Amino acid sequence: MPELRKDPIVGRWVIISTDRAKRPTDFAREEVKIKGGFCPFCYGNEGKTPPEIQAYRPNPNGGPTPQRDTPGWTVRVVPNKFPALGIEGTLNRQAEGMFDKMNGVGAHEVVIETPDHHATLAMLPPKRIEDVLWTFRDRILDLKKDRRFKYILIFKNHGEAAGASLEHSHSQLIALPIIPIYVNDELDGSKQYFTYKERCVFCDIIHQESEAGIRVVAENEDFITIAPFAPRFPFETWILPKQHESAFEHSSSQMFENLARAIKLLLMKADRVLDNPPYNLVIHSSPVQDPVNDYYHWHIEFMPKLTKTAGFEWGTGFYINPTPPEESAKFLREASVEEMSPVTAG
Amino acid sequence: MPELRKDPIVGRWVIISTDRAKRPTDFAREEVKIKGGFCPFCYGNEGKTPPEIQAYRPNPNGGPTPQRDTPGWTVRVVPNKFPALGIEGTLNRQAEGMFDKMNGVGAHEVVIETPDHHATLAMLPPKRIEDVLWTFRDRILDLKKDRRFKYILIFKNHGEAAGASLEHSHSQLIALPIIPIYVNDELDGSKQYFTYKERCVFCDIIHQESEAGIRVVAENEDFITIAPFAPRFPFETWILPKQHESAFEHSSSQMFENLARAIKLLLMKADRVLDNPPYNLVIHSSPVQDPVNDYYHWHIEFMPKLTKTAGFEWGTGFYINPTPPEESAKFLREASVEEMSPVTAG
Repeated sequence: MPELRKDPIVGRWVIISTDRAKRPTDFAREEVKIKGGFCPFCYGNEGKTPPEIQAYRPNPNGGPTPQRDTPGWTVRVVPNKFPALGIEGTLNRQAEGMFDKMNGVGAHEVVIETPDHHATLAMLPPKRIEDVLWTFRDRILDLKKDRRFKYILIFKNHGEAAGASLEHSHSQLIALPIIPIYVNDELDGSKQYFTYKERCVFCDIIHQESEAGIRVVAENEDFITIAPFAPRFPFETWILPKQHESAFEHSSSQMFENLARAIKLLLMKADRVLDNPPYNLVIHSSPVQDPVNDYYHWHIEFMPKLTKTAGFEWGTGFYINPTPPEESAKFLREASVEEMSPVTAG
Repeated sequence: MPELRKDPIVGRWVIISTDRAKRPTDFAREEVKIKGGFCPFCYGNEGKTPPEIQAYRPNPNGGPTPQRDTPGWTVRVVPNKFPALGIEGTLNRQAEGMFDKMNGVGAHEVVIETPDHHATLAMLPPKRIEDVLWTFRDRILDLKKDRRFKYILIFKNHGEAAGASLEHSHSQLIALPIIPIYVNDELDGSKQYFTYKERCVFCDIIHQESEAGIRVVAENEDFITIAPFAPRFPFETWILPKQHESAFEHSSSQMFENLARAIKLLLMKADRVLDNPPYNLVIHSSPVQDPVNDYYHWHIEFMPKLTKTAGFEWGTGFYINPTPPEESAKFLREASVEEMSPVTAG
């Protein structure tokens, strides 16, 4: 069973994989190459993943009920074959002298976004992206029944430089008994802001950015896409719901429709401007046990992996960003991509 | 002039380089290759760096006083040719609506650790490493006179995968008008711990680790080298002074001697166990305007760059570490390297 351990100085939890520990020789010096050839996420290879947790299988003609773990799905969710956490057991919170630890209990799932091995998320029709978003919601609603879990993290690594180990387009979901430290920092910060101003800091940002326009990338009825004022990375971009809402899973069907459009538009623009960059995409939402509140505003953070400045920043949290967000927003805003429907930008 | 901007949610400051902004096409997709051929840090090329700030030039035979910016030095400090911050001007703190910013005023210096192009820090004699440490101290004492600066960051990127752009062994120093967020988190956390326990959290860690021994890598009269209980990265290792001391620059000459030995030993062991890994090394010390306190304990954090898990972790602060610190400590502890003097390990 992996272990969750807390740093006693800053309070950050980390997962220590005690089971399949890496020895020094296990760290390949070369770049991790995405495996070619056999793909466990393609049709016909359903038996090569752990049994599916859920799948969308359109059955328009009312034929025989489709079988689990067979082709015909459009989105498929399976447990991660090499999970970072174990699903069974109790947390068993313990001290080790002055230190704190607990069992690495949690869920680690993979959302296979399309049966098409060569399609990227940016290439999928908006309706298919919507299906992926509904799948996220379904999984959150299912997993939040488990009271051991405090946070459900949804993220996507695209491209090997961004940490993807399989080429076939997929996202990941990790349900955790703790809250990741950056999300905690955001929760604390937005709580403090709310205590003082009685306004949501994200709502204030949306209001100011929308007025100024210079950091706006795109906008539709429900979502605004902006380059944040103090981004850590070049071309870091956030997608936020315009109306205050603390949890992703509370979105209406209209919102998922517009979110799918906003995601597709941003990814297409990024592909255009940055020549198909590797990227990470993370959903920041309220903790599952506090899903309705006035101070936190769920959003998506998109970070293309363009620079290689990782090491020093890890030691300090101090980032030097060579691209002002006003410029990255302008490049993305002005990039013309084949559009499904008109989008206004400030 | 670069700009310092504060994220209004978590309070993290970042540097935005507004002057030499990178356009999308400036981000080379390939790995940054360390430049071969001409090296501005070698003897004879002193004119290719900005004029030196200080240098050690042994002059044992009492010959003519050596000239600045000529060969003969053993450690040389020059301004960074492409500084992240500008040294001139006032901070000019300003609001931009709800946002906070100031001029990117600061110092950015390079410490060339040796005239030998092919020597790594691990290969230098302890005495030469000591000279580097004295150089850090000299620069801190000089820069802390400038009341615009709140923090002086000293770090080393070794190897291109760790962000080094020149092969010739060097460290960097950045003087900042703000405190980097991780250091701030450590300051806050250790303050809280002290408020409750009236003990330094680092002193408690040293005491417990020293008793248990399982995460101890090495030890000498003044320093202990440990794998922390909840490390973010495989083989992350800290070097801490055994006696409570909040600021690096207060170290005695005996301490610098023993610190040089501890650093050399750790780097040699890491080279042996991990086959000359790229790494980052950062000194965490108290803010220059609060150099004597009971709660913060300066230390060095050493992070070999072995995994490629950067992207997702940036979005969450949530780390999955495949190597338990008990194992990394054991590997490093047991690695035999040619030693200058006996070292005991728990």
